[in-house]
Amino acid sequence: MERGLRASFMAHAYDFYKPNLSSEYPAVDGKLSIQCYLKALDNCYQLYCQKARKLSALTGDSSNDAVGINSFDAVVFHSPYGKLVEKSFARLVLNDFLSTPKETILELYPGLEKFSNIKLEETYFDRDVEKGFMAFSKELFKRKTLPSLLLSNQVGNMYTASLYGGLVSYLISKSVEELGGKRVGFFSYGSGLASTMFSMKLVAGPKLSQLVSQLTYVHDLLAQRRKIDPAEYSKMMESKEANYNKAPFTPTSSTDLLFPGTWFLVDVDSQYRRTYDKVK
Amino acid sequence: MERGLRASFMAHAYDFYKPNLSSEYPAVDGKLSIQCYLKALDNCYQLYCQKARKLSALTGDSSNDAVGINSFDAVVFHSPYGKLVEKSFARLVLNDFLSTPKETILELYPGLEKFSNIKLEETYFDRDVEKGFMAFSKELFKRKTLPSLLLSNQVGNMYTASLYGGLVSYLISKSVEELGGKRVGFFSYGSGLASTMFSMKLVAGPKLSQLVSQLTYVHDLLAQRRKIDPAEYSKMMESKEANYNKAPFTPTSSTDLLFPGTWFLVDVDSQYRRTYDKVK
Repeated sequence: MERGLRASFMAHAYDFYKPNLSSEYPAVDGKLSIQCYLKALDNCYQLYCQKARKLSALTGDSSNDAVGINSFDAVVFHSPYGKLVEKSFARLVLNDFLSTPKETILELYPGLEKFSNIKLEETYFDRDVEKGFMAFSKELFKRKTLPSLLLSNQVGNMYTASLYGGLVSYLISKSVEELGGKRVGFFSYGSGLASTMFSMKLVAGPKLSQLVSQLTYVHDLLAQRRKIDPAEYSKMMESKEANYNKAPFTPTSSTDLLFPGTWFLVDVDSQYRRTYDKVK
Repeated sequence: MERGLRASFMAHAYDFYKPNLSSEYPAVDGKLSIQCYLKALDNCYQLYCQKARKLSALTGDSSNDAVGINSFDAVVFHSPYGKLVEKSFARLVLNDFLSTPKETILELYPGLEKFSNIKLEETYFDRDVEKGFMAFSKELFKRKTLPSLLLSNQVGNMYTASLYGGLVSYLISKSVEELGGKRVGFFSYGSGLASTMFSMKLVAGPKLSQLVSQLTYVHDLLAQRRKIDPAEYSKMMESKEANYNKAPFTPTSSTDLLFPGTWFLVDVDSQYRRTYDKVK
């Protein structure tokens, strides 16, 4: 973990909340969620860069002088879905672009000059800006962020776990030799909203080797997944919905699909007391 | 705050929990709650005393050598209801009793000798033990704990606030001169359960005077309360129950009964977004 470089942003927002206590599902306003996420990202990134420059001046370590997307070997994002992460990566480049002296824009961002007077908070849904910066950052995105999206893309929305699943994905995407010395940026986000950007440097050595070697099971588990027919899946979801908050309740579903070691609900008694067991 | 003397106890217990999300009310098992509370109290107190003795040995400050109920000028408890607090105070004396060398029991605890072989965890509902120790500690309780029960007795169950309402009650029960130098023990409890015992010494001086002088409003507010007819109260509670979790919802109840500065709910919109206002 790089100390002194943690940047947080919080706001009161009705983004993806669960107000209806008799429903398992949250209230979703997709457009608001995107705006909240991107706004949080802008704020965290700007504060992160500001702290990095300050730290650089304090320590004399010039590596943070001009912190920007190129300072990171990888950037891992909280991932509700892949497209938003791709947009977010482009958004970091847009932030870099807006803090670049005008005279160097033509050289560093060819083709994007026309955007040099835009305001960040007016571009959350600006298709031209989005398209321009996504095209411009496409190759960088593939290199720095796509490797961290393996689990998100395969498993779907995991909330808190998505960021750390992103780190796992990144760690299993390269050899230990390649990983040593890499600097990884993280953007953590929780609806409501609270968000933090932080970074770490992967230190080559036995600890990193051990960590990475312990992750070989990930590909195995992914390969062991079983396909379920959409109709069967819908039935499972309907049953979940019908039994939400019920007491007493004893699930009748099979545990055959669960991996060994998975905890599952055995029973809810009439006082709503829950009993769990673990798949052998 | 007395540093190094914080003692906590936690356990997984279905004590006073809210599992039914469509109801405003918790699930209550009175007997279990009492057992949880007393067990937590025993554990916190024993650990507190143990830490105090250790601290005493470390610092050479002999005041904690034989920590016990007499080490405190006041003991403030989390208070679901007054009777349990009275029982709890007696329970601390019972703890002291059990850690007292047998040869001194006759002298220090006359009339309680017959209890010298009991086990704490078998006495949660032992009426003889309870009666014996409550009678024995009655005067001590009046002196050390009763003053802190003013708000609990007048306002009823306040959850977290009950402990700090207890401190306020104690502070307004004496003159500033009397308060200076007093050592106060606290027992904080939350169902579920998590509990902590800690203590503070009230330092005579301008800060204590200022704190106490700012509390004169408490008696005034208590005096300004209005009596409500039980039938009217029941109607208010029924309306609350009927409108629990409703959206959209606009309360129709009057804010006349609320003190100036109280926040109240103005509206819940169809998306469950809540708007509040403050009584002028």
